[in-house]
Amino acid sequence: MTRLDQQVAFLVEADRLKSVNRAATLVDASRHENSAEHSWHLCLYAVVLADQAGPDVDIGRVVKMLILHDLVEIDAGDHPVFGDADLDAIKAQEDAAADRIFGLLPADLRDELRGVWEEFEAALTPSAQFAKALDRFQPPMQNLASGGVSWAAFNVTPEKIEARVAPSIMRGAPALWDYARARIDAFFNGRT
Amino acid sequence: MTRLDQQVAFLVEADRLKSVNRAATLVDASRHENSAEHSWHLCLYAVVLADQAGPDVDIGRVVKMLILHDLVEIDAGDHPVFGDADLDAIKAQEDAAADRIFGLLPADLRDELRGVWEEFEAALTPSAQFAKALDRFQPPMQNLASGGVSWAAFNVTPEKIEARVAPSIMRGAPALWDYARARIDAFFNGRT
Repeated sequence: MTRLDQQVAFLVEADRLKSVNRAATLVDASRHENSAEHSWHLCLYAVVLADQAGPDVDIGRVVKMLILHDLVEIDAGDHPVFGDADLDAIKAQEDAAADRIFGLLPADLRDELRGVWEEFEAALTPSAQFAKALDRFQPPMQNLASGGVSWAAFNVTPEKIEARVAPSIMRGAPALWDYARARIDAFFNGRT
Repeated sequence: MTRLDQQVAFLVEADRLKSVNRAATLVDASRHENSAEHSWHLCLYAVVLADQAGPDVDIGRVVKMLILHDLVEIDAGDHPVFGDADLDAIKAQEDAAADRIFGLLPADLRDELRGVWEEFEAALTPSAQFAKALDRFQPPMQNLASGGVSWAAFNVTPEKIEARVAPSIMRGAPALWDYARARIDAFFNGRT
């Protein structure tokens, strides 16, 4: 295989992310969202909400992380944030998936892109923390716009949302949590 | 509306791109590809094939163009490259769509992101030409991997593919056209 054959083989394999479904739905609730279009949506979030990033955030790197962040789900599946999951088992599955999927690339690209994904996963850099914040901020925005379809499916309360998404959002983009919390509270208050 | 309300309203509206279907299918031919997941796939193409870009190409800007490039299809729909279409009418529809959709944003972001989209459309800069090349290169790669599903649906010949996609690919990423042409020729020769 030539270098270009390897690059294209990886890009063709990546197509399978379009068939990994998430717990969240589209805003019109017509179907579940898949992880590929979710990744695109997060890239758009990064571009549009760049003014929420701290001074040490590199938005170009954030976008690169968001493009790559869910690729391991091709093998490991999506794990809903409100589901019960064995985090160690997921981590092992995702590491094996990263070995296989990034391993389709030429070695230099494999190491570079895997490094971007590892940075996102570790969430230790300002860019990774901002990317993680957006990944946690988008689902409540989808739910608020759809009338809470997937919140209802998971019997979610405002307290449960806060416990699962607030820490990441507060760390990477604190004003987005203030905004989300006010809208989530208003939504649930309006229902009771 | 606050600035953040406007940003989120735009991001929620953008969700509708996930319901715009393209002529191309997924590699497994299970369904048509939508424009949101296609946009994500192109961003991944840009990251993985960055070594095909000329020295004046800014990959970060290419990715930004690819994130935004199909948003106008929310109003104007997708126009298959092998379909018969009135290009002036499409242009008018897409300009009106850009007015409405980017117009949801605060003025500074509206102007910035519309400018990125206009640069892509005009295809006069090296970055836009590389982005356009990827947008033309991905569909034949999908077709080659799926066994030519959407080529068959449009009765496409190698000559027709060359006429419609080669100019943009040759301009922005010439080695990708050499690669695509060889594989397209082998595919059609194998069928006859």
